[in-house]
This record gives sequence, structure tokens and C-alpha cells, in this order.
Amino acid sequence: MAKAPPKGFPSVEFEARTAKAQTAMDKAGLSGLLLMSEAEVRYFTGFHTLFWQSPTRPWFLFVPAKGKPIAIIPEIGAKLMRQTWIDDIRTWNAPNPSDDGISLLTELLSPLANQSATIGMLKGHETGLRMPLGDFERLIANLPGLRTEDATGLVRSLRMVKSPREIEKLSYICAIGSSTFGRVPEFAYAGKPLDEVFRSFRQAALDAGADDVPYLVGGADQGGYHDVISPPSAKPLQAGDILMLDTGATWDGYFCDFDRNFAITRADDLSRRAYDVLWRATEAGIAAAQPGTTCRELFHTMQSVIAEMDSSGGDVGRLGHGLGMQLTEWPSHAAFDDTIIQENMVLTLEPSLSYGDGRIMVHEENIVVRSAGAELLTTRAAQELPVI
Amino acid sequence: MAKAPPKGFPSVEFEARTAKAQTAMDKAGLSGLLLMSEAEVRYFTGFHTLFWQSPTRPWFLFVPAKGKPIAIIPEIGAKLMRQTWIDDIRTWNAPNPSDDGISLLTELLSPLANQSATIGMLKGHETGLRMPLGDFERLIANLPGLRTEDATGLVRSLRMVKSPREIEKLSYICAIGSSTFGRVPEFAYAGKPLDEVFRSFRQAALDAGADDVPYLVGGADQGGYHDVISPPSAKPLQAGDILMLDTGATWDGYFCDFDRNFAITRADDLSRRAYDVLWRATEAGIAAAQPGTTCRELFHTMQSVIAEMDSSGGDVGRLGHGLGMQLTEWPSHAAFDDTIIQENMVLTLEPSLSYGDGRIMVHEENIVVRSAGAELLTTRAAQELPVI
Repeated sequence: MAKAPPKGFPSVEFEARTAKAQTAMDKAGLSGLLLMSEAEVRYFTGFHTLFWQSPTRPWFLFVPAKGKPIAIIPEIGAKLMRQTWIDDIRTWNAPNPSDDGISLLTELLSPLANQSATIGMLKGHETGLRMPLGDFERLIANLPGLRTEDATGLVRSLRMVKSPREIEKLSYICAIGSSTFGRVPEFAYAGKPLDEVFRSFRQAALDAGADDVPYLVGGADQGGYHDVISPPSAKPLQAGDILMLDTGATWDGYFCDFDRNFAITRADDLSRRAYDVLWRATEAGIAAAQPGTTCRELFHTMQSVIAEMDSSGGDVGRLGHGLGMQLTEWPSHAAFDDTIIQENMVLTLEPSLSYGDGRIMVHEENIVVRSAGAELLTTRAAQELPVI
Repeated sequence: MAKAPPKGFPSVEFEARTAKAQTAMDKAGLSGLLLMSEAEVRYFTGFHTLFWQSPTRPWFLFVPAKGKPIAIIPEIGAKLMRQTWIDDIRTWNAPNPSDDGISLLTELLSPLANQSATIGMLKGHETGLRMPLGDFERLIANLPGLRTEDATGLVRSLRMVKSPREIEKLSYICAIGSSTFGRVPEFAYAGKPLDEVFRSFRQAALDAGADDVPYLVGGADQGGYHDVISPPSAKPLQAGDILMLDTGATWDGYFCDFDRNFAITRADDLSRRAYDVLWRATEAGIAAAQPGTTCRELFHTMQSVIAEMDSSGGDVGRLGHGLGMQLTEWPSHAAFDDTIIQENMVLTLEPSLSYGDGRIMVHEENIVVRSAGAELLTTRAAQELPVI
């Protein structure tokens, strides 16, 4: 496997991201961006911690129209934030339910409110508000002149296209994932409980160099699995089961997200056929993922192969998505998404279909889009359903 | 180690939770609760999946004044939700950015809006809005008669006190954590890079039976660590380092959250003293954590011991918290929190102090409060700083 790339990013990376954001903000008439979710705070600062697991404390980053971003964060994060390129770090002794950063934000934003300025926030698809809604309502009430606009499109346009350093990290974690899937035949066999298979998979991913395996789902059942989001049962694998494992492992804060299907001891004909259809749908997706194509076109390209066996369109809502600091990111390969695919996007191709008696099958590969077309980051799945 | 308890919960558990919520809603004049975060949806339904890792799709649960909760969820989750005790499951083909559940919610809530009813939502401390803010604004605009009130206090009062089955799960994951910390001397030694120590710790936790290790932070440095939220560097451990590992491992969706400190080869006097002060502060906390005590009193009890060495109050903002489906939950052992400690609360005791040249030390244990006082769920840390 390839050598690990350097961890983190040099300041020049964050300077470039901030400059691009500020150009886009200028065009959009925004006087700043108020951000508060893990991926966005990390995108502009490099602040990287598992502490986001705790919902107790809110964290804020303000990207002004000019100059470096300003961090408004709990004091517990100050030391780590001081190691980033950020200079202006304002902290409070959190948690403090009566004032969890609201005074500091009010002070920062008051001059903009006095000018009736507009700032951007994430209000759109695939976003949430990572602060108490009541605090947000109070903040807005404190700043009567301030206008807030949805800046999801702006942030998405930046984050969807990855830098060479981001692609290095994504490529590395995809290689770790591929190496891990290569070892599945060692630990998945008839008689082994599914939850133990999951445990072995996590161990193997850590062995291969993953920092963590935040996402691991799958299923196994006779002649095909029924569900792709369940935690594993303790039911032992049996001959004739179709086993699927789908993982989001991380390295330096970047995810892979792909799956593999296996037949335990023997494979039924219908599952073989479903596998073949999805393998070819993925192949069509790889060929179609060219700069200039839309996600909608990519979706229809894959869907037209899937329709050989299932014309329902399935129930997963899309056939792939963006990939980066989050397991799933914009865009979506779906009929509703007319995003134009660009060079250096990192994407999943994830065709799925329903078959037989309520079975579902999903295939997934990860690609980076180059000027000449898709380049696989994952080791391509076997052309025929592997029997192990 | 104890045998694993059964996974999941019987329906009677969810019926009891719902009945308690409905009694509290009746008192508060609420016609329903609109919930959308992982812990709350799981609390009332048992719906358990790692799929929450994907930010793409919102998930909604409405707890009416009478009857079972109603799930409004993406179709991809329908099969798993049908395995719970919930009957009324309304789905849409998500993601669909133009209508991600908003029509379904509008239809459900319109009769209440027409009666100018009030429903509860989580707007308070330690909560967020897990749906696009823009969609929430549209939903509210669709329902002009509807009033929304903060129900954080109501939900908190239910979730803070654990059921016997929840305590079984928490006890089991704490035992897994204790067993894992018992193995640290096997894999933490001078010369081993810190990130490899983290990897070995995760492996050992999985070996011991953890489902996952979503949270693992720590630090190591000569004469004490500086920061408790950083990801690990690749710097090898050295003789004279103080190593701290703090983990949130999970079993069946419940967390342990505690840490341990170790001196590598030799311990400096100041770190020994800090350890002793914190060990005694924890001891004082264990003695004080009786039903009827407030979290504020518990905080001051521990703080008065800490003050022997550090009167600043530290920068972590509190000295412990609730524990359950989330790594950190209400209440907080802090001066601001006058929550009365009750039987069957599961809590962390987490005294910390600053010492020397910008060093910090943190101790942490997990307890369940019984009628007679605190019962440790973790194997108590050694009385003196262990040298390994």
C-alpha cells in the first residue's frame, strides 16, 4: 500500500480556501459567513478533534469579507485552535447555558448589524444548526439590523472540489479500505456471527492504518439482504447468505465510503444476476463521470442499466454522492441534482436495486474526477459475485 | 467480565417512556413533541443505526399527546423502523431537497395548527436543530397557528434518569472500558508513537467486546500533557511522559466515558501530586453523589479538593456530566447547574486541574446513583499515579 501522506495541511491551503470564499462572498454581497459545524470549521481552520462527539458546547467560526477567520469557541479548545493558522481566538468558559458564546457573537456582529449587512449561514440541504435553536433566536433578536442568507450553495461550491492534498488523503483512506475488504475472506465464513464479522472488519481496518471506522453497516441473509442501515445481529453466517459490508473509515479526518458483496459458500442465481447488473451500472457510471456531465445525467446512465432488473428506482433516493470530511456530501447522483461534475471532485458511485422477495443489493466505488475522466480510488470490485 | 446483557429493549420500555413523556406533556400544556435527533428518536422508538453519520437526510418523530409516536422518515429507514414498536411510519423518497419531509410534517401538524396548539421542540442547552434551518423556517411558515415551545427540560428530565435495562448496558460498556484500560501497560511504552497507542487501544476495546470507539482523545508529554481534545501525534512516548487516554466506547448504543493517567517509566513529583489531588477530589465526588444533592454541590465538593493545587477552576467548564446514549448528556457538575441528583442517574465525575507550566490533568470515573449513594461502574483508578 502507498505510504501515508503528511497529516494536516500547510497554512497556504487555508489561505487559498478563505480567499476563494471571500471572492464568492463579494459576488454574493455577503459581509461574512457564520459557520458552526465540524466540517466547515475544519475546512477554514484545520481545527481537528473528536470533541465534536460531545453535543454540550457550540463552536463558531466567522469568515469576514477580508482577513483571517475569527474563532469564537469554548476555552477548552483554545490550545488546539492556537496551533492552527487562526490568530483571533475569542473564548468563553463553556458550558454556560445562560451565555454559550452569544455575547461574544453579538459583540462581533453588532457593527455589521448597525450597517444592515447580510451574512451567510448554512440553511440548505444536508446542513443543520449546531447550536441551540433558542440561542440562535436570541442572537438574531440581539442584532435587529442583521440579515442572514442561505450560503449553502457558496460553501458547497468550495467544498465539492477537492485540493490535491485532500485527494491524497482520500486516496490513502480508500486504499486502506480496499486492503481491509481484501481480508474479508479471512474472517467471514459460515458459522461466524455477523456482529463478530463487523468487529473483525474494524480490527482489520485499524491494522491497515485507518484512524477510525465511524461507519460500518451491512447485512447478510439467505439469497440476499433486506436492509442496508441496520446494526449487525448476532446471527451466524450461513451457506447461501449474501453478505454486504459498507464502511466509512477515516484517515486524518477524511472518509472512504464503499461496500463489497460476498456470497457465503455458494451464490444463488438471482443474486449473481443482481450483482452483474450493478457491476455494469457502476462501469457505466465510471465511464460517464466526466467533467461537464451533470449528476442527473450520471444518475440516468446508471439507472438505465439498473432498469434491466429493477425499474422502481429503489428506495435509497440516489445513486451516489460527494465524499470528503463527511461520509456523505453534496452533490447527489439523483434526478433532482443538476450539479455539473468538475475536475477534482471526489464522488461515490452507488447503484442499488431491489430484487426477489424484498432483497436489496448495493454496489459502491469511490472515484476522483480528472480532466480525462474518472479515476478509481478503490480497488475495483470483482466482476462476478465472489463466493467465499 | 460480566456476560453481555440482551441487546435492544422490549416494547414495554418504550411504552413506559412514552407514557411518562405524555404525562409531562399534559402538565406542560403541550399537544406533542417534534423530535429529530438521534438520541431522542432512539429513546422513544429503539431505532438504532449508524446511518445518522450521513447528514444528508433528516429524520422526524412526533410524540402525540395520546397514542404511539409517529415516524416521518426517509424510505431507506422504513424496514428498520418497522422492526420497532412503532406502527405509524410515513416515508418519502429522500433526499429530496425541494421537500425533505416538509409536506408530510405539514400534513401531520396542520390539525394542531388549526387549533392554535403548542408543541414542544428541543431548543435548549446541549441540543441542535438536525434539519436544514431553511426547511424549518418554511415548515413554521406553513403552520401559522402552531406555537413551538422549548421542551428541553421535559426531555432532559426523562432521559437523565436511566432504566434498569439502560444501566445494565452502561455497566457493561464501562466494564469493557475498564478491561481495556487494564491492558494499556501492554501496548504503551517508551518508543511507541502516540497514534499507534491510540490504534492499539481501539483494537483492545474491540477485543474486549466494544461495538465501536467513537471517542478517543488524550495526550502525552514530559511532566504532563497540555491539551485534552487533540488527535494523537506520531511522536513516540518517552520516559518521563505523562500519558492520558480518555475514551467513549459504545455497546448497543450506550457510552462509557472515562480516562486514565499513566507515567511512562518514571513520574515527576508535580504530576504525582496533581494525580493525588484529583484522586481525592474524585473520592470526595463519589461520597457526595447522593440522591438529593445538587450538581452544584457536587461541583463545589470536588472543587474544594482541587483548590489545594489549582484555584482557577480550570478551563473545562465543569467537573463531570450525565452519560448514556450520548458521550456527554445533562446534567453538568458545574456552578450553574442546580439539578437535583436522583436515583438511577448515570454520571461521570471528572475533576481536572492546571499545574506546572501549562499542564493539565483530568481524572474521570463513571457512576450510577443508587438510593444509598454512588456505585462505581468503572474499576476505580489506582490511588497513586501508575508508572508503566
